[in-house]
Formats: sequence, structure tokens, C-alpha cells
Amino acid sequence: MSQTTIHEFINGVDVGRMGENVEVVRCTPSLATFRFRATNQWIDGGHNRSSIQNFYGGGQDDTLRTAPFVLDADEPPLFLGTDQSANPAEFVLHALAASLTTSLVYHAAARGIHIESIESKLEGDMDVQGFLGLSEDVRKGFQQIRVWFTVKSDASAEELEALMKFSPVYDIVSNPVPVSIAITKQSTN
Amino acid sequence: MSQTTIHEFINGVDVGRMGENVEVVRCTPSLATFRFRATNQWIDGGHNRSSIQNFYGGGQDDTLRTAPFVLDADEPPLFLGTDQSANPAEFVLHALAASLTTSLVYHAAARGIHIESIESKLEGDMDVQGFLGLSEDVRKGFQQIRVWFTVKSDASAEELEALMKFSPVYDIVSNPVPVSIAITKQSTN
Repeated sequence: MSQTTIHEFINGVDVGRMGENVEVVRCTPSLATFRFRATNQWIDGGHNRSSIQNFYGGGQDDTLRTAPFVLDADEPPLFLGTDQSANPAEFVLHALAASLTTSLVYHAAARGIHIESIESKLEGDMDVQGFLGLSEDVRKGFQQIRVWFTVKSDASAEELEALMKFSPVYDIVSNPVPVSIAITKQSTN
Repeated sequence: MSQTTIHEFINGVDVGRMGENVEVVRCTPSLATFRFRATNQWIDGGHNRSSIQNFYGGGQDDTLRTAPFVLDADEPPLFLGTDQSANPAEFVLHALAASLTTSLVYHAAARGIHIESIESKLEGDMDVQGFLGLSEDVRKGFQQIRVWFTVKSDASAEELEALMKFSPVYDIVSNPVPVSIAITKQSTN
């Protein structure tokens, strides 16, 4: 039996295809397994560079990207860097803003909720006594993050917040993720 | 009494200035308070854009950056996006790789440990049944992250790993960060 996808776009999202994809995963949960990847190379001082290209998902390696996304990170002069890009903690704020926004857009589309505009502002507090090793009592990462959204939509603020909280990065930041680190050491010449 | 900074660079880091900065923070812990910021604007579908420029730190707003870092996020076609940039979860891997690398480089420099090269590879596992709302038992974010480092240095692998773990983003990902969300809702026209 052949099927015809009905392409209806809400919030720029093809909800016809979205509905099909959700049904596929509901019927075959193993297709829900994804593996995202990055490689990184140190350049000098606080400057390093990641490449992000293929990922595994939907039962196979996705190789549609013909070139990697190349992302630099650096530190500002106050942290002895050369400010060639945002710093790693700032990239976390970008990831969180982007994920909350996309989660809201997609989950609203799935429910037929139209959104006209979304803007957000984020702040993360850090006490660098933690990173510097000056105090065992101060954590190294953000102590807290505050997010302010302005959303133009007919849905209620409560509903908008509930939809945002499907965000994978909100989960990653709010809850512990186990991180394993393996090191291969090469001797210097 | 005037002081002369001795500029000695290890791993591309000015360890003379670093030592001075650490002493300043040790004497005046309030200068350790930092506040990083981002703003984000939804474009369409899974595509949105962050601007990152000023931050507060060292007792004042840092305004050395004359233009913002502009960072896009998007989703691949498999997630109904247009692949104009890495996706939010991939940005988390970039942030983590960059932060582990910079933390290693800086803390090694502070101890006089020379590093010749650092490369890393990261993988994050996600079961999108969580994001899709198909299962309450599946988390929305990464279930785990694996990191492989290859480091050329005379320090031991154990020492290198301990230095990496000063990483702010390693802390953010491994441990819970409280995130508050405030929403201002505007009605559609």
C-alpha cells in the first residue's frame, strides 16, 4: 500500500512528515537510538577547534552532510585568550537557548499551535574560584542559569513553558549526564 | 610599589599574567564573580541564531568585544531541519570538548607541564523517544557521553585527566545546574 505524505507546515516544520516519523519510532523503538559526534583539536592557548559532521540515527549513519561544521572556541583576553570565538561556557548558553527554542517550535507545531516570534536572553553565573582551584566549596561550572523568553503566540505562558521543557539540552544541563573520559598518552619527542 | 609582569608562555598561556590574576582573585574573591550572556532569535523551523558579546567579570562589564559572535543552530533533514549549522546537542559536545581541552592546557601551564598536542573525539547517546514524548522512562537529553583524548605530553594520563576535570562544562554536564525560565507572552496580531 503506497502512502502519500501530506505536507502541512506549521512554524516552518513539516508536521505531515513529523507525524510519520513519530509513528515509525513508535512502531520500531530501536530507530530512536541516536549517537551524535564531535572531534576537537587544540590550536594554542585557549583556542581550539571542533569538527561536527556525521551522526548515527534512524538505524544508520547519516552521511548527508558533505562537509563538517567547524566551530572554534577561545577565551577573552581577561582569561588570557585571543577572543577568536565564544568561550566554552558561552557555547552552553547558545546550546540551551537553541534547544529550548526548537523544542517549543516543534512541539507547538505537533499540537497545531502557531508561533509568530521567539526571542530569548540567557545569563549564567560562574564563580571562577572553582575553576582556579582556590576553593573546594565553589563549583567549577555555572551556579545557576536564568532564561527570559518573549514569545508571540496565542498559547498560554504555562503551555509554552511545558513545551520548551522537552528540550534535550535543558535536560542535559538540569540533570547529571555520565561522562566517561579515556586518555591515550603519547610521549613528547 | 610598581610591579613588572614576567611574560613566560607555556602551552600558549601567559603564566606570568595567570599567576597575577590568581593572586588578585585570592585577595579579592568578589572579583571571581562572572556572568556570561547570550541572546537568541528564532528564524524558522529548527533554525535559530544566538549573539554573544559582553559579559560581566573581574568587577565590571567586559566590553572589549566590538562585535558579537553570531552562532546559528539548526537540525539535519532527518529532524526536519535545513542543516545550516550543528544542532543544539552537538553544540554541547563542542562546548565540552573545548572546555576539557582548555582546562587541561591552562592547569598544565600553571604547573609547568608542557603539552605538545591534544586531540579528542566525543560521542553522545540519545534515545529520541524522550524528546518525542513517546516514553516517560526515557530521558530527553544524552544518556551518556564518551570522550577519548590523545595527548602528547610527559605528564601521566592520571595527571592529565585530573587537570581536565577543572573544566566548567564538565561540571555543568555531569552535575545539575538550576535553570529558571521566565516567559513574557505577546498575543498574535
